[in-house]
Amino acid sequence: MKSELERFQLQHLSVLNDYLESYLSNLNGERTLKDAMLYSVSAGGKRIRPMLILAICCESRRKIDKDVYAVAASLELLHTYSLIHDDLPEMDNDDLRRGQLTNHKKFGQAIAVLAGDGLLTTAFECIGKTNLDDSIKATLMSALAKAAGPQGMVSGQVADIQGENKQLTLAQLQELHQCKTGALIDYSCYAGGVLSALSAAQQAELHQFAMSFGLAFQIYDDILDVVSTEKQMGKAVHKDQSEHKNTYPELMGLDGAYRQLDAAILKAQASLDILEKMGMKTELLSGFLDYFARRKIK
Amino acid sequence: MKSELERFQLQHLSVLNDYLESYLSNLNGERTLKDAMLYSVSAGGKRIRPMLILAICCESRRKIDKDVYAVAASLELLHTYSLIHDDLPEMDNDDLRRGQLTNHKKFGQAIAVLAGDGLLTTAFECIGKTNLDDSIKATLMSALAKAAGPQGMVSGQVADIQGENKQLTLAQLQELHQCKTGALIDYSCYAGGVLSALSAAQQAELHQFAMSFGLAFQIYDDILDVVSTEKQMGKAVHKDQSEHKNTYPELMGLDGAYRQLDAAILKAQASLDILEKMGMKTELLSGFLDYFARRKIK
Repeated sequence: MKSELERFQLQHLSVLNDYLESYLSNLNGERTLKDAMLYSVSAGGKRIRPMLILAICCESRRKIDKDVYAVAASLELLHTYSLIHDDLPEMDNDDLRRGQLTNHKKFGQAIAVLAGDGLLTTAFECIGKTNLDDSIKATLMSALAKAAGPQGMVSGQVADIQGENKQLTLAQLQELHQCKTGALIDYSCYAGGVLSALSAAQQAELHQFAMSFGLAFQIYDDILDVVSTEKQMGKAVHKDQSEHKNTYPELMGLDGAYRQLDAAILKAQASLDILEKMGMKTELLSGFLDYFARRKIK
Repeated sequence: MKSELERFQLQHLSVLNDYLESYLSNLNGERTLKDAMLYSVSAGGKRIRPMLILAICCESRRKIDKDVYAVAASLELLHTYSLIHDDLPEMDNDDLRRGQLTNHKKFGQAIAVLAGDGLLTTAFECIGKTNLDDSIKATLMSALAKAAGPQGMVSGQVADIQGENKQLTLAQLQELHQCKTGALIDYSCYAGGVLSALSAAQQAELHQFAMSFGLAFQIYDDILDVVSTEKQMGKAVHKDQSEHKNTYPELMGLDGAYRQLDAAILKAQASLDILEKMGMKTELLSGFLDYFARRKIK
């Protein structure tokens, strides 16, 4: 039997994907650029970040209309830019992503840089085109820029590169991950809350959930790199170890990493319990915890 | 004797530069990233785009306060990102920019990509942090994203790469330049107009001015590449020809390019005459035409 989250995903994933494809297809501009952006955006992926936005709107009984899809889509556009740049030869130098050739392997390095630049920039355009109130647009664009920029995701990317072949402490590793993946997950929850007009207290607790969920997500991703196969993941695995990347399993062994994961999940669940007392539904968010953080690799 | 534009630049350039440096210095985040962003932003340059915003505010008698500087600064942050990515080995592969080593020559390719990403993203953050009305913030951020994104500057970049070693027609070359440099110059004028609460008719004529000015600017830049020295320009010259880039002098010879330049300047001046009849001052904008478009290289 399908879980509530699986039913929710089935209901919304294809609408979101259609929205993304039609948004990019309808842009004017250079053809190769459009092809390159579409290539990476259409490659699939779990769409966790936009799904978090949609789920929070649903749990808060906010109607999931075209504007909500647009905000969710803008986040996936931005996330995809980060993957394209991350895969570049000067960065992680990856050949496979989401089960297909990486953008620069398919279109060449120059187009891949520009496809990333285009996706990042149009993420803001995508929010600007909605019919949301100007105050909501301004709030979301500002928050997205902060989360993705030099105080957020990009800072984490640089810290990751600078930390290679060095042994970071647990605190440094947490700080790195908070920027690199935590900031955008935090933004997902915030954006869902803004769209749903949640109270300040609800937003504050949702932020707590986002921090724990983001941590669990990152630890889980680190674990997957150790225990899974390339076929399961659709991208190269066992890379962290061979490149002396700083990860939870590297720092504290696989068992230690699983223990940290469990602790983060418990904290996230505690936040959901509080949110439920504040009047939100939490079945879907709880499902995210189950699905993405507790799933064991066979 | 100094022209009104030179006095204006003297008055505002150092305030703008201080704003840029203090904005970047006050960001939290990874140290190397900040250094790399500051390195390229602090390298100087003519600051034409932000100066256009400031000049339009001045001509419209809009007070040049901190918010105006912020919007002007955000545009320079974004412009600097485009220079950093443009200089990358996979793009123009330049070693010198604004008289110093290019970002990737100084910090390595990975940091240069990320410094560009950081500057692009924080340009939106910079507008979001102002005390302007939400409606103005949303308008400016949306317009900036459109001008800089896959329907604007990035599209022009890709068209430029795709057009190498091909003979473009004049119409194709104009379309390329309209995206690559015209869109951001158009945004500069638009942003100045929005900040000054110009009427729709004034904005429309300012847009005409921007189109002609942007064209003149680009033709002039093409001519400079042919007739100037590396020392004068602070970057490599004579590159367009050796790399079979599509430029005005390549397409119609140097004399033909000068004729196109003169035509564009005349058109821009005609727009200024109309704007003056609509109640705007135009001495500074006229000075831009003199300074950047009419100046002859010795």
